[in-house]
Amino acid sequence: MASKNTRTELIETGTRMLLQTGYNHTGIQSLLQAVGVPKGSFYCHFSNKEDFGLQVVEHYCRKHTAYLERYLSDESQSPLTRLRRYFEFYIEYYASLQCQDGCLLGNLAAEMADQNETFRTRLEELFTGWRERLAECLKRAQEVGEVPAELDVTAVAEFCLNSWEGAVLRMKTCKSVAPLHTFVSLFFDSLLKG
Amino acid sequence: MASKNTRTELIETGTRMLLQTGYNHTGIQSLLQAVGVPKGSFYCHFSNKEDFGLQVVEHYCRKHTAYLERYLSDESQSPLTRLRRYFEFYIEYYASLQCQDGCLLGNLAAEMADQNETFRTRLEELFTGWRERLAECLKRAQEVGEVPAELDVTAVAEFCLNSWEGAVLRMKTCKSVAPLHTFVSLFFDSLLKG
Repeated sequence: MASKNTRTELIETGTRMLLQTGYNHTGIQSLLQAVGVPKGSFYCHFSNKEDFGLQVVEHYCRKHTAYLERYLSDESQSPLTRLRRYFEFYIEYYASLQCQDGCLLGNLAAEMADQNETFRTRLEELFTGWRERLAECLKRAQEVGEVPAELDVTAVAEFCLNSWEGAVLRMKTCKSVAPLHTFVSLFFDSLLKG
Repeated sequence: MASKNTRTELIETGTRMLLQTGYNHTGIQSLLQAVGVPKGSFYCHFSNKEDFGLQVVEHYCRKHTAYLERYLSDESQSPLTRLRRYFEFYIEYYASLQCQDGCLLGNLAAEMADQNETFRTRLEELFTGWRERLAECLKRAQEVGEVPAELDVTAVAEFCLNSWEGAVLRMKTCKSVAPLHTFVSLFFDSLLKG
Protein backbone atom coordinates (compact mmCIF):
# COMPACT_ATOMS: atom_id res chain seq x y z
CA MET A 1 0.00 0.00 0.00
CA ALA A 2 2.05 2.95 -1.29
CA SER A 3 -0.35 5.45 0.28
CA LYS A 4 0.01 3.98 3.74
CA ASN A 5 3.80 3.89 3.42
CA THR A 6 3.90 7.54 2.42
CA ARG A 7 1.91 8.53 5.50
CA THR A 8 4.19 6.42 7.71
CA GLU A 9 7.29 7.94 6.14
CA LEU A 10 5.96 11.46 6.57
CA ILE A 11 5.13 10.76 10.22
CA GLU A 12 8.47 9.10 10.98
CA THR A 13 10.60 11.71 9.23
CA GLY A 14 8.40 14.41 10.77
CA THR A 15 8.98 12.98 14.24
CA ARG A 16 12.74 13.29 13.75
CA MET A 17 12.39 16.82 12.40
CA LEU A 18 10.09 17.93 15.23
CA LEU A 19 12.48 16.44 17.79
CA GLN A 20 15.49 18.08 16.21
CA THR A 21 14.20 21.50 15.21
CA GLY A 22 10.85 22.02 16.94
CA TYR A 23 7.42 22.61 15.42
CA ASN A 24 7.73 26.20 14.22
CA HIS A 25 11.12 25.61 12.63
CA THR A 26 9.99 22.47 10.74
CA GLY A 27 8.94 23.37 7.21
CA ILE A 28 6.52 21.23 5.24
CA GLN A 29 8.65 21.82 2.16
CA SER A 30 11.74 20.43 3.89
CA LEU A 31 9.73 17.43 5.07
CA LEU A 32 8.47 16.73 1.53
CA GLN A 33 12.01 16.99 0.18
CA ALA A 34 13.36 14.68 2.89
CA VAL A 35 10.71 12.05 2.14
CA GLY A 36 10.76 12.70 -1.61
CA VAL A 37 7.05 13.12 -2.21
CA PRO A 38 4.99 15.96 -3.78
CA LYS A 39 2.84 18.37 -1.80
CA GLY A 40 -0.35 16.56 -2.82
CA SER A 41 0.77 13.47 -0.87
CA PHE A 42 0.97 15.54 2.29
CA TYR A 43 -2.53 17.03 1.96
CA CYS A 44 -3.87 13.60 1.10
CA HIS A 45 -3.03 12.52 4.68
CA PHE A 46 -3.06 15.71 6.75
CA SER A 47 -5.35 18.71 6.56
CA ASN A 48 -2.61 21.18 7.56
CA LYS A 49 0.63 21.53 9.50
CA GLU A 50 -1.15 21.54 12.86
CA ASP A 51 -3.00 18.32 12.05
CA PHE A 52 0.33 16.80 10.99
CA GLY A 53 2.05 17.94 14.19
CA LEU A 54 -0.71 16.48 16.33
CA GLN A 55 -0.55 13.17 14.46
CA VAL A 56 3.22 13.08 15.02
CA VAL A 57 2.54 13.55 18.75
CA GLU A 58 0.06 10.64 18.73
CA HIS A 59 2.53 8.42 16.86
CA TYR A 60 5.30 9.32 19.31
CA CYS A 61 3.04 8.58 22.28
CA ARG A 62 1.92 5.20 20.98
CA LYS A 63 5.55 4.14 20.70
CA HIS A 64 6.48 5.40 24.15
CA THR A 65 3.31 4.08 25.81
CA ALA A 66 4.33 0.64 24.52
CA TYR A 67 7.68 1.02 26.35
CA LEU A 68 5.80 2.14 29.47
CA GLU A 69 3.55 -0.91 29.35
CA ARG A 70 6.43 -3.26 28.63
CA TYR A 71 7.97 -2.32 31.96
CA LEU A 72 4.97 -1.48 34.14
CA SER A 73 3.04 -4.64 33.18
CA ASP A 74 5.98 -6.95 33.88
CA GLU A 75 4.50 -9.08 36.64
CA SER A 76 7.79 -10.94 37.10
CA GLN A 77 9.09 -7.86 38.94
CA SER A 78 7.83 -6.04 42.03
CA PRO A 79 5.90 -2.81 41.30
CA LEU A 80 8.74 -0.55 42.44
CA THR A 81 11.32 -2.54 40.48
CA ARG A 82 9.13 -2.23 37.36
CA LEU A 83 9.02 1.53 37.75
CA ARG A 84 12.74 1.82 38.32
CA ARG A 85 13.54 -0.45 35.37
CA TYR A 86 11.31 1.74 33.19
CA PHE A 87 13.38 4.83 33.94
CA GLU A 88 16.64 2.87 33.67
CA PHE A 89 15.56 1.74 30.21
CA TYR A 90 15.24 5.40 29.20
CA ILE A 91 18.71 6.19 30.51
CA GLU A 92 20.04 3.59 28.05
CA TYR A 93 17.68 4.90 25.36
CA TYR A 94 18.88 8.48 25.67
CA ALA A 95 22.51 7.39 25.97
CA SER A 96 22.08 5.57 22.63
CA LEU A 97 20.91 8.90 21.13
CA GLN A 98 23.98 10.74 22.52
CA CYS A 99 21.60 12.77 24.71
CA GLN A 100 20.03 14.42 21.66
CA ASP A 101 16.35 15.18 21.05
CA GLY A 102 14.97 14.74 24.56
CA CYS A 103 11.25 14.11 25.02
CA LEU A 104 8.96 15.37 22.27
CA LEU A 105 6.19 16.14 24.77
CA GLY A 106 8.53 18.22 26.93
CA ASN A 107 10.00 20.03 23.94
CA LEU A 108 6.57 20.87 22.54
CA ALA A 109 5.33 21.91 25.98
CA ALA A 110 8.13 24.48 26.12
CA GLU A 111 7.55 25.67 22.56
CA MET A 112 3.81 25.41 21.99
CA ALA A 113 1.90 25.58 25.29
CA ASP A 114 1.51 29.36 25.10
CA GLN A 115 1.09 29.51 21.33
CA ASN A 116 -1.48 26.89 20.43
CA GLU A 117 -4.36 25.84 22.64
CA THR A 118 -5.00 22.59 20.72
CA PHE A 119 -1.41 21.46 21.31
CA ARG A 120 -1.51 22.61 24.93
CA THR A 121 -4.67 20.69 25.84
CA ARG A 122 -3.54 17.53 24.05
CA LEU A 123 -0.09 17.64 25.71
CA GLU A 124 -1.75 18.12 29.08
CA GLU A 125 -4.04 15.11 28.50
CA LEU A 126 -1.04 12.99 27.56
CA PHE A 127 0.96 14.09 30.61
CA THR A 128 -2.05 13.37 32.83
CA GLY A 129 -2.50 9.88 31.37
CA TRP A 130 1.20 9.17 31.86
CA ARG A 131 1.04 10.42 35.46
CA GLU A 132 -2.00 8.21 36.15
CA ARG A 133 -0.17 5.13 34.89
CA LEU A 134 2.81 5.94 37.13
CA ALA A 135 0.44 6.55 40.08
CA GLU A 136 -1.21 3.17 39.49
CA CYS A 137 2.19 1.46 39.72
CA LEU A 138 3.09 3.43 42.86
CA LYS A 139 -0.25 2.40 44.37
CA ARG A 140 0.62 -1.26 43.74
CA ALA A 141 4.02 -0.65 45.32
CA GLN A 142 2.24 0.84 48.31
CA GLU A 143 -0.06 -2.18 48.58
CA VAL A 144 2.88 -4.57 48.77
CA GLY A 145 4.70 -2.35 51.27
CA GLU A 146 7.47 -1.12 48.98
CA VAL A 147 6.71 2.56 49.57
CA PRO A 148 5.35 4.27 52.70
CA ALA A 149 1.57 4.02 53.17
CA GLU A 150 1.25 7.73 53.91
CA LEU A 151 2.54 8.86 50.48
CA ASP A 152 0.01 10.60 48.23
CA VAL A 153 0.70 8.50 45.13
CA THR A 154 -0.93 10.97 42.73
CA ALA A 155 1.25 13.82 44.01
CA VAL A 156 4.35 11.62 43.96
CA ALA A 157 3.58 10.46 40.40
CA GLU A 158 3.13 14.10 39.35
CA PHE A 159 6.44 15.02 40.98
CA CYS A 160 8.11 11.98 39.41
CA LEU A 161 6.95 12.77 35.89
CA ASN A 162 7.77 16.48 36.06
CA SER A 163 11.15 15.86 37.68
CA TRP A 164 11.97 13.32 34.98
CA GLU A 165 11.04 15.81 32.26
CA GLY A 166 13.28 18.38 33.94
CA ALA A 167 16.15 15.89 34.09
CA VAL A 168 15.70 15.07 30.38
CA LEU A 169 15.72 18.80 29.57
CA ARG A 170 18.95 19.24 31.50
CA MET A 171 20.47 16.20 29.79
CA LYS A 172 20.09 18.15 26.54
CA THR A 173 22.29 21.01 27.76
CA CYS A 174 24.94 18.98 29.59
CA LYS A 175 24.99 16.21 26.96
CA SER A 176 25.29 13.55 29.63
CA VAL A 177 22.83 11.13 31.23
CA ALA A 178 24.12 12.16 34.69
CA PRO A 179 20.93 14.18 35.47
CA LEU A 180 18.85 11.06 34.70
CA HIS A 181 20.95 8.95 37.09
CA THR A 182 20.62 11.65 39.76
CA PHE A 183 16.85 11.59 39.28
CA VAL A 184 16.62 7.79 39.61
CA SER A 185 18.90 7.73 42.63
CA LEU A 186 17.19 10.52 44.59
CA PHE A 187 13.66 9.59 43.61
CA PHE A 188 13.94 5.88 44.40
CA ASP A 189 16.62 5.78 47.10
CA SER A 190 15.68 8.91 49.05
CA LEU A 191 12.18 10.20 48.36
CA LEU A 192 10.39 6.83 48.21
CA LYS A 193 12.25 5.49 51.24
CA GLY A 194 10.17 7.97 53.27
CA MET B 1 21.16 58.58 26.41
CA ALA B 2 18.94 57.62 23.48
CA SER B 3 21.36 54.92 22.32
CA LYS B 4 21.40 53.16 25.67
CA ASN B 5 17.61 53.30 25.87
CA THR B 6 17.26 51.73 22.44
CA ARG B 7 19.47 48.85 23.46
CA THR B 8 17.50 48.40 26.69
CA GLU B 9 14.19 48.49 24.79
CA LEU B 10 15.43 45.96 22.26
CA ILE B 11 16.60 43.65 25.03
CA GLU B 12 13.42 43.98 27.09
CA THR B 13 11.04 43.57 24.17
CA GLY B 14 13.25 40.74 22.87
CA THR B 15 13.04 38.99 26.24
CA ARG B 16 9.24 39.00 26.03
CA MET B 17 9.33 37.78 22.42
CA LEU B 18 11.82 35.00 23.17
CA LEU B 19 9.74 33.90 26.15
CA GLN B 20 6.52 33.92 24.16
CA THR B 21 7.58 32.56 20.79
CA GLY B 22 11.04 31.05 21.18
CA TYR B 23 14.30 31.97 19.45
CA ASN B 24 13.72 30.59 15.97
CA HIS B 25 10.24 32.05 15.71
CA THR B 26 11.33 35.55 16.82
CA GLY B 27 12.01 37.72 13.80
CA ILE B 28 14.34 40.71 13.99
CA GLN B 29 11.92 42.60 11.73
CA SER B 30 9.05 42.04 14.20
CA LEU B 31 11.30 43.14 17.04
CA LEU B 32 12.25 46.34 15.21
CA GLN B 33 8.59 47.06 14.49
CA ALA B 34 7.59 46.41 18.10
CA VAL B 35 10.28 48.77 19.42
CA GLY B 36 9.85 51.23 16.53
CA VAL B 37 13.48 51.59 15.48
CA PRO B 38 15.26 51.06 12.14
CA LYS B 39 17.48 48.08 11.35
CA GLY B 40 20.63 50.16 11.81
CA SER B 41 19.81 50.59 15.50
CA PHE B 42 19.82 46.84 15.96
CA TYR B 43 23.21 46.30 14.30
CA CYS B 44 24.61 49.22 16.25
CA HIS B 45 24.15 47.12 19.43
CA PHE B 46 24.24 43.50 18.29
CA SER B 47 26.38 41.80 15.69
CA ASN B 48 23.64 39.37 14.65
CA LYS B 49 20.57 37.50 15.93
CA GLU B 50 22.65 34.99 17.89
CA ASP B 51 24.54 37.75 19.67
CA PHE B 52 21.20 39.40 20.46
CA GLY B 53 19.71 36.14 21.79
CA LEU B 54 22.73 35.55 24.01
CA GLN B 55 22.54 39.09 25.38
CA VAL B 56 18.85 38.57 26.14
CA VAL B 57 19.83 35.44 28.09
CA GLU B 58 22.42 37.42 30.09
CA HIS B 59 19.90 40.17 30.82
CA TYR B 60 17.32 37.59 31.95
CA CYS B 61 19.86 35.88 34.20
CA ARG B 62 21.00 39.08 35.86
CA LYS B 63 17.40 39.83 36.81
CA HIS B 64 16.74 36.32 38.13
CA THR B 65 20.10 36.03 39.91
CA ALA B 66 19.11 39.18 41.82
CA TYR B 67 15.92 37.39 42.99
CA LEU B 68 18.02 34.35 43.95
CA GLU B 69 20.39 36.48 46.01
CA ARG B 70 17.56 38.44 47.61
CA TYR B 71 16.27 35.21 49.14
CA LEU B 72 19.41 33.12 49.61
CA SER B 73 21.38 35.95 51.25
CA ASP B 74 18.61 36.78 53.72
CA GLU B 75 20.44 36.08 56.99
CA SER B 76 17.28 36.77 59.01
CA GLN B 77 16.01 33.34 57.92
CA SER B 78 17.47 29.87 58.39
CA PRO B 79 19.17 28.43 55.27
CA LEU B 80 16.36 25.99 54.50
CA THR B 81 13.70 28.67 55.01
CA ARG B 82 15.59 30.97 52.60
CA LEU B 83 15.58 28.26 49.96
CA ARG B 84 11.90 27.47 50.44
CA ARG B 85 10.95 31.16 50.35
CA TYR B 86 12.88 31.52 47.10
CA PHE B 87 10.75 28.89 45.39
CA GLU B 88 7.58 30.21 47.01
CA PHE B 89 8.40 33.64 45.59
CA TYR B 90 8.47 32.09 42.12
CA ILE B 91 5.10 30.44 42.63
CA GLU B 92 3.67 33.92 43.19
CA TYR B 93 5.70 35.26 40.28
CA TYR B 94 4.41 32.66 37.81
CA ALA B 95 0.86 32.99 39.17
CA SER B 96 1.06 36.74 38.40
CA LEU B 97 1.97 35.81 34.80
CA GLN B 98 -1.04 33.44 34.54
CA CYS B 99 1.42 30.56 34.16
CA GLN B 100 2.65 31.90 30.81
CA ASP B 101 6.22 32.04 29.52
CA GLY B 102 7.93 29.71 31.97
CA CYS B 103 11.70 29.90 32.41
CA LEU B 104 13.69 31.31 29.49
CA LEU B 105 16.64 29.01 30.24
CA GLY B 106 14.42 25.93 30.23
CA ASN B 107 12.60 26.99 27.07
CA LEU B 108 15.86 27.68 25.23
CA ALA B 109 17.36 24.42 26.51
CA ALA B 110 14.47 22.55 24.87
CA GLU B 111 14.69 24.54 21.65
CA MET B 112 18.36 25.30 21.15
CA ALA B 113 20.56 22.74 22.96
CA ASP B 114 20.77 20.49 19.89
CA GLN B 115 20.85 23.30 17.33
CA ASN B 116 23.43 25.78 18.55
CA GLU B 117 26.54 24.87 20.51
CA THR B 118 27.12 28.45 21.73
CA PHE B 119 23.66 28.58 23.29
CA ARG B 120 24.04 25.06 24.70
CA THR B 121 27.34 25.73 26.46
CA ARG B 122 26.18 29.08 27.86
CA LEU B 123 22.90 27.59 29.14
CA GLU B 124 24.83 24.75 30.75
CA GLU B 125 27.19 27.22 32.49
CA LEU B 126 24.21 29.18 33.79
CA PHE B 127 22.44 26.05 35.07
CA THR B 128 25.66 24.94 36.75
CA GLY B 129 26.12 28.30 38.47
CA TRP B 130 22.50 28.21 39.66
CA ARG B 131 22.95 24.67 40.97
CA GLU B 132 26.12 25.68 42.84
CA ARG B 133 24.31 28.54 44.56
CA LEU B 134 21.52 26.16 45.62
CA ALA B 135 24.10 23.62 46.81
CA GLU B 136 25.83 26.30 48.89
CA CYS B 137 22.55 27.08 50.64
CA LEU B 138 21.85 23.37 51.20
CA LYS B 139 25.35 23.01 52.66
CA ARG B 140 24.57 25.79 55.14
CA ALA B 141 21.29 24.03 55.97
CA GLN B 142 23.28 20.87 56.59
CA GLU B 143 25.75 22.70 58.87
CA VAL B 144 22.93 23.94 61.09
CA GLY B 145 21.26 20.52 61.13
CA GLU B 146 18.24 21.39 58.98
CA VAL B 147 18.89 18.62 56.45
CA PRO B 148 20.45 15.18 57.01
CA ALA B 149 24.26 15.14 57.16
CA GLU B 150 24.49 12.20 54.77
CA LEU B 151 22.86 14.06 51.84
CA ASP B 152 25.10 14.79 48.86
CA VAL B 153 24.22 18.48 48.56
CA THR B 154 25.53 18.80 44.99
CA ALA B 155 23.35 15.91 43.80
CA VAL B 156 20.35 17.23 45.75
CA ALA B 157 20.84 20.73 44.30
CA GLU B 158 21.05 19.23 40.80
CA PHE B 159 17.86 17.25 41.42
CA CYS B 160 16.19 20.34 42.90
CA LEU B 161 17.01 22.58 39.96
CA ASN B 162 16.05 20.05 37.29
CA SER B 163 12.85 19.06 39.10
CA TRP B 164 11.91 22.71 39.41
CA GLU B 165 12.49 23.26 35.68
CA GLY B 166 10.29 20.23 34.97
CA ALA B 167 7.55 21.59 37.24
CA VAL B 168 7.72 24.98 35.47
CA LEU B 169 7.46 23.22 32.10
CA ARG B 170 4.39 21.30 33.28
CA MET B 171 2.87 24.51 34.64
CA LYS B 172 2.87 25.78 31.06
CA THR B 173 0.67 22.92 29.83
CA CYS B 174 -1.72 22.70 32.80
CA LYS B 175 -1.88 26.50 33.26
CA SER B 176 -1.83 26.14 37.02
CA VAL B 177 0.85 26.56 39.68
CA ALA B 178 -0.17 23.18 41.17
CA PRO B 179 2.99 21.42 39.85
CA LEU B 180 5.12 24.11 41.57
CA HIS B 181 3.34 23.54 44.90
CA THR B 182 3.78 19.77 44.48
CA PHE B 183 7.50 20.34 43.89
CA VAL B 184 7.91 22.51 47.01
CA SER B 185 5.92 20.13 49.16
CA LEU B 186 7.67 16.91 48.11
CA PHE B 187 11.14 18.41 47.90
CA PHE B 188 11.09 20.17 51.27
CA ASP B 189 8.66 18.04 53.29
CA SER B 190 9.63 14.58 52.04
CA LEU B 191 13.02 14.43 50.31
CA LEU B 192 14.92 16.78 52.64
CA LYS B 193 13.41 15.23 55.74
CA GLY B 194 15.50 12.15 54.95
